[in-house]
Amino acid sequence: MSDNYRSMWTELGLDLESHDALLGVLGNAYQEIYLSQKNRPEGMAYFDFVMSEVHGLRIKELMDEKAAGRKIVGSYCVFVPEELVLAANATLVGLCSGADFAMEEVEKLLPRNTCALIKSSFGFKLGKVCPYLESADMIVGENTCDGKKKAYESLGQLVDNLYVMDLPQVKSENGRALLQNEYFRFKTAMEALTGVKITAESLKAAIGTVNAKRAALHRLAALRKADPAPISGLDALLSNQVFFYDNPARFTESVNKICDELENRIAEKKGAFPAGTPRILVSGCPQAVPNWKLPFIVETSGAVIVGEESCVGERGTRNLTDASGQTVEEMMAAIVDRYYQVDCAIFTPNPDRLAHIEEMATAYKADGVIHYGLQFCQPYLMEAMPVEKALEEKNIPCLRIDTDYSMEDAGQLKTRVEAFIEQIKG
Amino acid sequence: MSDNYRSMWTELGLDLESHDALLGVLGNAYQEIYLSQKNRPEGMAYFDFVMSEVHGLRIKELMDEKAAGRKIVGSYCVFVPEELVLAANATLVGLCSGADFAMEEVEKLLPRNTCALIKSSFGFKLGKVCPYLESADMIVGENTCDGKKKAYESLGQLVDNLYVMDLPQVKSENGRALLQNEYFRFKTAMEALTGVKITAESLKAAIGTVNAKRAALHRLAALRKADPAPISGLDALLSNQVFFYDNPARFTESVNKICDELENRIAEKKGAFPAGTPRILVSGCPQAVPNWKLPFIVETSGAVIVGEESCVGERGTRNLTDASGQTVEEMMAAIVDRYYQVDCAIFTPNPDRLAHIEEMATAYKADGVIHYGLQFCQPYLMEAMPVEKALEEKNIPCLRIDTDYSMEDAGQLKTRVEAFIEQIKG
Repeated sequence: MSDNYRSMWTELGLDLESHDALLGVLGNAYQEIYLSQKNRPEGMAYFDFVMSEVHGLRIKELMDEKAAGRKIVGSYCVFVPEELVLAANATLVGLCSGADFAMEEVEKLLPRNTCALIKSSFGFKLGKVCPYLESADMIVGENTCDGKKKAYESLGQLVDNLYVMDLPQVKSENGRALLQNEYFRFKTAMEALTGVKITAESLKAAIGTVNAKRAALHRLAALRKADPAPISGLDALLSNQVFFYDNPARFTESVNKICDELENRIAEKKGAFPAGTPRILVSGCPQAVPNWKLPFIVETSGAVIVGEESCVGERGTRNLTDASGQTVEEMMAAIVDRYYQVDCAIFTPNPDRLAHIEEMATAYKADGVIHYGLQFCQPYLMEAMPVEKALEEKNIPCLRIDTDYSMEDAGQLKTRVEAFIEQIKG
Repeated sequence: MSDNYRSMWTELGLDLESHDALLGVLGNAYQEIYLSQKNRPEGMAYFDFVMSEVHGLRIKELMDEKAAGRKIVGSYCVFVPEELVLAANATLVGLCSGADFAMEEVEKLLPRNTCALIKSSFGFKLGKVCPYLESADMIVGENTCDGKKKAYESLGQLVDNLYVMDLPQVKSENGRALLQNEYFRFKTAMEALTGVKITAESLKAAIGTVNAKRAALHRLAALRKADPAPISGLDALLSNQVFFYDNPARFTESVNKICDELENRIAEKKGAFPAGTPRILVSGCPQAVPNWKLPFIVETSGAVIVGEESCVGERGTRNLTDASGQTVEEMMAAIVDRYYQVDCAIFTPNPDRLAHIEEMATAYKADGVIHYGLQFCQPYLMEAMPVEKALEEKNIPCLRIDTDYSMEDAGQLKTRVEAFIEQIKG
């Protein structure tokens, strides 16, 4: 990393020593998990570069945008509509929450029995190692699960720019009205933050930009239906993870370039793994960078992951926003419609999610589903039990995993995953 | 128990063998915890009788009501407005959730990391040992915490009469509108269940009945300000627990009779414990029958509990419903106003609860606060940390407890409670 970055990080208030340690661990993990893979698409070199510069060049770009007067908005959830952020001439970035950091400090503010994702978000703040968080002009929290909802009360004591978005728990008339009200309130907040009024023109352009990102991932996802799978689950997950960080246009272009390459691979029957490799659909909690534990275990145990039913995956990206509206109101309605379909486990009941899992299992020809639950994530852990039952009634084998970010259970997980893969091969 | 009860329980579909075992354990616990207390008010004999007949005479009364055409509504939460149930000529009862039962069966449907209260409610159903649940014509669930919200999806597979009430997470305009809509929907559901239209007259009478119950408990609470405390925390908690089960008018009369007696005790400076006994306020999660673990430990360790900031306590009963309205609409608005003030930890932010804890600590002259958290109850466990901090900043000692219904940690809890009592005596 250049000295430039060090002074930038210092200005952002990062703890350089801790941050160096974090980047060291991240670099080693990336080497071991990603760069050691065989038969990778050449286009993944772009994402390798992005990851090598994830706290460097990308932050420099954000700082340059800020210097030019553009605002940065940080988020922890797919319910924060990027369309409105872009239309107000701001940039949306996902905030760090994929690794344990400063846990001793975190557990002074949050109960030990809090899910790893939430604890991680606090750890990155308390450890002063997240340049995205520190560069953000506004941090958007959302009332999804109890854990996040209550944690934001404490996060609000640690930062002075937290904005909390309320969300419904039921898809009812009132629930939809709440989402709509909250999105209009967020639109106003974006306009106030940037001083830029959202117009029909800027909103249409923003919808186009975000839809293009999503469409590129749809194209990537569809190519994973092939056998042999042309790309590893790890690499596909990384694309879904970088979706939250990267410059949108560049991201779209890079994913489409990989898709061009994958189409050629498919024509040549070339894959990341041999044809006939057992195929796994992962379903459940989000996997934020650098939480690659489960896919690494799966793909070094003789199977390939062909889809992610996850916020960092199809749950987050599956639907486009209707761009046909002519007025701000029409497009706002389309945005509400689009996000209202997200089948997060915070909703009760949530039948669409099970239907989507079954649909994905069929579409991607999965031999089995691994339900990925973060320990203490009540909504997904509770939904996992009926999901498993429903899948097994349809003869779709399902393995329920309940884990955190530590590596303590890696051996045990690998044993369970290997046994599951043997089972679905049989 | 008479043979009459056995045939009643059989008709209700209870598992007599398990139910006998439960009643045996309950009886022994009551003997050990309640009847062994010294200096009890004579009026507590009524509650001793109620408890000895909790699955007997009270159920017989409910069955008689049912035979006469009256409907029984079961609930798990103080957000279910008893006023509307009574006004539709039905009876509201709290459902069993204070003891572990059939845990092996429960953990096939709910994750192990689910709070004891929720697991218990499933255990009583799966073990077929809750005559209240089995006699209910309608079971009302509510979207409070993630755990309950998602658990009701599974409970709905076990019973055919579950009604789910949505609740807000934020006290906003939309949140209030949701509560109002849901209470009007519940009113309609009550009328449909009973075939009885709620009128201004019946609603006013119902408000009066429920307010009288609450006012009796307010009177009881106020008397606990005295030193020596005229009644043990265990006995006062029992009154708050029976509030959910008993015939309302009889309950009110019985509590007021105890209050008459306590007034005399206070005049004579007689107490359940000596003057100067360290005084504890318990704050946090509800303690349902027979979850008497913490107060038993506290009151056999040299302290007396003088208040419960809890759903089974002042959080549930503190506010009366304004009965001055003349129309159904005016009284419905008063009901919404009343329940909207309940400061459950599901709300974000929830500053009223901290204010109430501080207010109670002062009013009841508590020497310290024990925050009672059920393990895996995210809303209360997360709120406990800032509550503890805020109290200690005001020099109110606070002990945070995180426990379940098992007795495994009783020794450890007792050690911590004793140390805390030593600290506040110092």
